Amino acid sequence: MKKILSVNAGSSSLKFKLFEMPVETVITEGVIERIGSEEAGMTIKFNGEKVKKTLSIKDHNVAVELLISNLTDLGIIEDLNEIKGLGHRVVHGGEKFVDSAVINDRVLKDIDDLSDLAPLHNPANLTGINAFKRLLPDVPAVAVFDTSFHQTMDEEAYMYATPYEWYENYGVRKYGFHGTSHKYVSGRAASILGKEDAKVIVCHLGNGASLCAVDGGKSIDTSMGLTPLEGLVMGTRSGNIDPAVIEFIEKKENKTIKEITHDLNKKSGFLGISGISNDSRDIEEHAEKGHKRAKLAQDMFVRRICGYIAQYNLELEGADAICFTAGIGENSALVREEVMKRLAPLGVTINHDANKLRGEEKLISTEESSINCYIIPTDEELMIARDVVRLTNK
Amino acid sequence: MKKILSVNAGSSSLKFKLFEMPVETVITEGVIERIGSEEAGMTIKFNGEKVKKTLSIKDHNVAVELLISNLTDLGIIEDLNEIKGLGHRVVHGGEKFVDSAVINDRVLKDIDDLSDLAPLHNPANLTGINAFKRLLPDVPAVAVFDTSFHQTMDEEAYMYATPYEWYENYGVRKYGFHGTSHKYVSGRAASILGKEDAKVIVCHLGNGASLCAVDGGKSIDTSMGLTPLEGLVMGTRSGNIDPAVIEFIEKKENKTIKEITHDLNKKSGFLGISGISNDSRDIEEHAEKGHKRAKLAQDMFVRRICGYIAQYNLELEGADAICFTAGIGENSALVREEVMKRLAPLGVTINHDANKLRGEEKLISTEESSINCYIIPTDEELMIARDVVRLTNK
Repeated sequence: MKKILSVNAGSSSLKFKLFEMPVETVITEGVIERIGSEEAGMTIKFNGEKVKKTLSIKDHNVAVELLISNLTDLGIIEDLNEIKGLGHRVVHGGEKFVDSAVINDRVLKDIDDLSDLAPLHNPANLTGINAFKRLLPDVPAVAVFDTSFHQTMDEEAYMYATPYEWYENYGVRKYGFHGTSHKYVSGRAASILGKEDAKVIVCHLGNGASLCAVDGGKSIDTSMGLTPLEGLVMGTRSGNIDPAVIEFIEKKENKTIKEITHDLNKKSGFLGISGISNDSRDIEEHAEKGHKRAKLAQDMFVRRICGYIAQYNLELEGADAICFTAGIGENSALVREEVMKRLAPLGVTINHDANKLRGEEKLISTEESSINCYIIPTDEELMIARDVVRLTNK
Repeated sequence: MKKILSVNAGSSSLKFKLFEMPVETVITEGVIERIGSEEAGMTIKFNGEKVKKTLSIKDHNVAVELLISNLTDLGIIEDLNEIKGLGHRVVHGGEKFVDSAVINDRVLKDIDDLSDLAPLHNPANLTGINAFKRLLPDVPAVAVFDTSFHQTMDEEAYMYATPYEWYENYGVRKYGFHGTSHKYVSGRAASILGKEDAKVIVCHLGNGASLCAVDGGKSIDTSMGLTPLEGLVMGTRSGNIDPAVIEFIEKKENKTIKEITHDLNKKSGFLGISGISNDSRDIEEHAEKGHKRAKLAQDMFVRRICGYIAQYNLELEGADAICFTAGIGENSALVREEVMKRLAPLGVTINHDANKLRGEEKLISTEESSINCYIIPTDEELMIARDVVRLTNK
């Protein structure tokens, strides 16, 4: 038995989850927020209790020191030596990382080199890795990439029809994200179906959202692209548009590419269409009350999900399962119902009673349904911990 | 019986086709090219012969004078009064034109106002209209828009998830193009099927390419967008990409939005991927000889077509017909075969013998096929002539 810590470091936050492995029980989990502020916050859940503190946290090093000291101070662990491995989420692994990797100087440099593909994320991930390295230099650490799972895609799936030199010189192609989640959920579906070569469509629907077609454990297509902007309608992201919209808006509003791309990432999606909120719960509430633009946002979201499902169902030559996961996928009975209704021509039939559930693993299609539909809560932290065990046991 | 002239004016060209209506026989057709040059060319087909001339043509007015004088000089018509109507192709009708329109001063102003949505096309179309107006001021003229047919799309199909104000203030939405072709071909399919409410997927595959889902004569979805850049892989256009690619390339190549959008329109698609040619015939030839990037371009083209077909088949709740039209659609047995092969999971089965045909109306699926697949040569000029008759007979 050994304790493994999963870490997800953002630019001003640090989420963590401590597992007892290989039994996969959660010992503690929590988050440190607003790092760099006088009013930073730490939340730790332990033994059914939640400890919250507000204090000044200068940087990630201080955040990690605080986390480590609290683990012993709160009696969660007796000795730091009990932590036998660290797993770090890293957003972009480019074409370099087709699997998770034990962190060494070369891996650190590669992650840094990939920062131009994820300028907001990889540097923050590195800051987290380095802070732990400073405090726990002897604990083996593993980087788990959001992109690795999708490296099995065929060239015809990942290439854009842009000048080939853009790919050769700068790596312009579809990478896809949420890979750890897509892998976990499709793996669960395969287990439930008792079919190792199961064909699964995973709908990871959160504030960021992507779909993935998984064939026998391998990603063959996904809706996000070079960045997480492509694909579905999201909380604040536009997803697919005519690329010519950018030049058109430049002329109309005299904005820079950077500003327009920011609008597409931060002021679009549910927020842009509804004018109300990026939160799907607000959208649902207002749509139900007759707010037209909230309803439109919801309908566009559902329509685009169904478009991808139809496409992936064809690419898979008939899916065995469609899985809903992440914030909206696990909790919105309405979105699942709207999606499944539109899938009726594929032979999908909903079990309305089962679909009322939230956040629990559940079959929500009827026995007659041509494709089994499931709610499968995702667990990226567990996948990270598993990869730490797998790669540090060698 | 009356003669109707269909006109398609580009920035330096003018295509024409003269019909005897309502019998719909073609009296003559041809093209004037390189207008504005000392070495302009005119080609007229008449009575099975082809007349070609090279001469200096200063502008569209001179081109129209030349055309008109040749119609009488060559004995194609005896008197200009025989021309009872003119039909002009206009690319962008915005939300203003849900149907073709008899041209008057107001319509001319509206077409001009819509030029910011099609800055390369609408002004050229107007130049053509005005040249004919000068020479044949008393002949009624009708504008036929590429976009009108798609104005039946639902809001959830045509809206982008961009800031709503972009739609309200500047009309940023999906318009779709090739409407005259999609209308003609889907209408032919409905006739062949003897089913007025037929559900038809039209694959208009030329150097520009778009798909359209037609339900009972109404377009419910199409792959082109605000401009013809969106959607499929085309001769030189990228079709869909992650919109964030533009900012990424700006940083790497220090280009302007205009330059990058130009690259996406002119240096992408078949040309960009293959590095060889924008012409699908060259791509096919090289792919067959083992040129990897030509094969990749072909595979990407076919894959994306199939993705849209799967999506539209769902939106239509089961299509009655899939139709191939335009340059590639009518002539490439290979592309049709590759598409239909991938549609096998939908129950589509190809009739290989029938599929060998080119440019002829033909059923190319077997009797067992779940969806009838056809080659249907398009005829946008005839549709334009029909609209002239319909709207000037009032």
